[in-house]
Amino acid sequence: MFSLYTDRYQLSMLGAYLREGIASRRAVFELSMRKLPRARRFLVVAGIDRALRYLEGVRFTEEEIAYLRESSSLRDVMTDAMVDYLRGFRFRGNVCGLREGEVLMGGAPILRVEGTLAEAQIVETFLLGVINHESKVASKAARVVLAAKGRPVMEFGARRLDPLAAPTAARAAYIAGCIGTSCEEAGFRYGVPVSGTCAHSYMLAHVDDGEDGAFRAFAEAFPGGTSLLVDTWDTLRGTLRAAKAGPAVKAVRVDSGDLARLGPQVRSILDAAGRKDVKIIGSDDMDEYKINALLAAGAPYDTFGVGTAIVLSPDAPSFGAVYKLVEVDDRRGVPMPVAKRAPGKASYGGKKGVWRAHRDGVAVGDTVALVSENPAGASLYTEHMRDGKRVSTATEREATKSAREYCLEALKTLPEAQRVIALEEATPASEQYTVSISDAVRKLEKLDG
Amino acid sequence: MFSLYTDRYQLSMLGAYLREGIASRRAVFELSMRKLPRARRFLVVAGIDRALRYLEGVRFTEEEIAYLRESSSLRDVMTDAMVDYLRGFRFRGNVCGLREGEVLMGGAPILRVEGTLAEAQIVETFLLGVINHESKVASKAARVVLAAKGRPVMEFGARRLDPLAAPTAARAAYIAGCIGTSCEEAGFRYGVPVSGTCAHSYMLAHVDDGEDGAFRAFAEAFPGGTSLLVDTWDTLRGTLRAAKAGPAVKAVRVDSGDLARLGPQVRSILDAAGRKDVKIIGSDDMDEYKINALLAAGAPYDTFGVGTAIVLSPDAPSFGAVYKLVEVDDRRGVPMPVAKRAPGKASYGGKKGVWRAHRDGVAVGDTVALVSENPAGASLYTEHMRDGKRVSTATEREATKSAREYCLEALKTLPEAQRVIALEEATPASEQYTVSISDAVRKLEKLDG
Repeated sequence: MFSLYTDRYQLSMLGAYLREGIASRRAVFELSMRKLPRARRFLVVAGIDRALRYLEGVRFTEEEIAYLRESSSLRDVMTDAMVDYLRGFRFRGNVCGLREGEVLMGGAPILRVEGTLAEAQIVETFLLGVINHESKVASKAARVVLAAKGRPVMEFGARRLDPLAAPTAARAAYIAGCIGTSCEEAGFRYGVPVSGTCAHSYMLAHVDDGEDGAFRAFAEAFPGGTSLLVDTWDTLRGTLRAAKAGPAVKAVRVDSGDLARLGPQVRSILDAAGRKDVKIIGSDDMDEYKINALLAAGAPYDTFGVGTAIVLSPDAPSFGAVYKLVEVDDRRGVPMPVAKRAPGKASYGGKKGVWRAHRDGVAVGDTVALVSENPAGASLYTEHMRDGKRVSTATEREATKSAREYCLEALKTLPEAQRVIALEEATPASEQYTVSISDAVRKLEKLDG
Repeated sequence: MFSLYTDRYQLSMLGAYLREGIASRRAVFELSMRKLPRARRFLVVAGIDRALRYLEGVRFTEEEIAYLRESSSLRDVMTDAMVDYLRGFRFRGNVCGLREGEVLMGGAPILRVEGTLAEAQIVETFLLGVINHESKVASKAARVVLAAKGRPVMEFGARRLDPLAAPTAARAAYIAGCIGTSCEEAGFRYGVPVSGTCAHSYMLAHVDDGEDGAFRAFAEAFPGGTSLLVDTWDTLRGTLRAAKAGPAVKAVRVDSGDLARLGPQVRSILDAAGRKDVKIIGSDDMDEYKINALLAAGAPYDTFGVGTAIVLSPDAPSFGAVYKLVEVDDRRGVPMPVAKRAPGKASYGGKKGVWRAHRDGVAVGDTVALVSENPAGASLYTEHMRDGKRVSTATEREATKSAREYCLEALKTLPEAQRVIALEEATPASEQYTVSISDAVRKLEKLDG
């Protein structure tokens, strides 16, 4: 179950660890962000529930082990001992860290994985992939939702990424505040609200009766209420036709053209036709910048549909979390903090956590400190998994719902400077949120090789 | 099987089509690129084999149908007729289009899907997702491979995207010329060569014996040959130690710091230690621009490892293929070309194909024309699927291999201007590859609504 969704080097290292007799030494890894990506003033952490389910379920099948035995470049280490290890492999370690839906204003460790060197190493790739994917989407979605200033934002980016990654993208966007998704599988699996009415192809398919016929037929098919797409040929004429297509029409969607100019015109046409109740949905390659500009110009959109921007996050396409060994037992069984020194990629050693201070309900600063320090502020860490078993018994749907609730509360604590949807790539120093690295962390002797 | 990996609106439209009695009308959709993304002078098409397997296998399970019946917003159309349709749903249509691995120098239709309006509509989301994902990765990988000027490029981006999307990203990168991947599942499933040796955590885990001990242990574990990571603490000292770690050491990897400066120093240290045979692998957030700069500066790297850039394609993060209805039968059963007029998103109607002219083995121009025109040049289209059955009997591994072979040949026909790895976002007019839209396509009456 997902065991080969890993990098080869995890298996090469496992082979060496087994040979050296250090595979079962206790180790602590941290999955963390070194710093915010450019173009981000805050992040939303997502993917944790799925990461934990992976840890609970990861197994090597006989077919997978047979494949590994046939690999010529693994031949040196695919001993009987390695095969036995893979057959019996379970993740039996402990995990703690941030809650899913947590908001970060700077670099911080996200998850701490404690277990044997072997088991905590081999799960690196999948854990990073899940957290990087879902957190990237959630972080972008939260910005888009903020830009919409209370107007609903629906995510519909399923076609823009690998189909298998679409349901989790939808889930992440929902956690960060989107009202729903177009992706049916996300509804099925995670309980994300799903909506969607028609595409341009529906309009074009009505070769016999044209736009009027298409609108009428669609409104008749959905007497309980629907939206109509008005820009297939001429947006304003389409709007007029939609306004007359009956009471089932609850909204019109404008998907092309100059949305700032069209918005007021569409509104006027609807109002003049006695349809003040009909909402206007704006789509067409939307993102937080465009939504911000549209609303600043007073364009009367009630809802936004956003695809590419949310699921691919083009201005910060890589989330960039990393997974680092921070502590490992030495030959006497004494835990030793470790950190690499590679220029630009140096990491802090030792078992750490994150503590946050608030003032008047607003987050004012984080401290990254050693677990042993227990500094002031509220710890953002919680226990996720003990001895390979998830602490929570929530279903995937329940976990999605509670992550969303947590996130929406956490977003309320965002400092105003971080809430700003700014085109600037860098945050002015005066508006930077302070993340302190404790002296104890800084002073930790770094192991030299 | 994957039936809910679709957008809700496909199901809403299906409900309306069934109600209107037009679901079984013959329709033709085209999956196409309108134009090249900015920052791209050519594209590599990938994902076709997987798209076809999806079409062959897509089914609705009873559990999925039950979920759809419970959805309040689909209630209006979830009739017994709709449930029966979903239960019996198979894709039974025809598909033709470009070969997997084809190279495009401009906008063109990629696949043509012919079937009933219902069946050809419902598969849109998955088809787009697969082609957009794999083609995005393949297009970026081909640039990176070109920049490396014959030096091997290995893809190791699995941790940067949803884990479920990693094997297909690896496959796409391999098709476009990478020599292999770190992603074990891509080897298992698609036969992509997999490699990988060790991470910084391996070095750090050696708290008792440090870098020397780690190198020695790893070289002993892989007497058949391996690479060592030399930048955990000090790259030059690490290189010297690696040079003395025995004949199993075939390469060193430099993963941080100023690679242009370090390259010659690492080479000198290896050579002075009598290890002229040891290769140097450069990694650290590589892309085609950095590789180009390193090689232009004469840095002696033999191989490159590239992760984020290949799998996320940050300079062109959305591939942007679309799926458009181009022809549909009217009530008399006469096929009618259709096209939308939405500003900036207008499409050409009619069943089209792509023909290419070559001169001296170099591609000199494409013509997008109606199938009925059959213009000069070699057709780039082939039949992929007839009546819902794939024409090819190749396994996934065989299809991956032949797509790669096809792609490497096609890349040899790239005009020099398109081969240039340029930082400029726009291609100068003098270097633009000509894609002609035939007069017949342009003259097609556009249906008005």
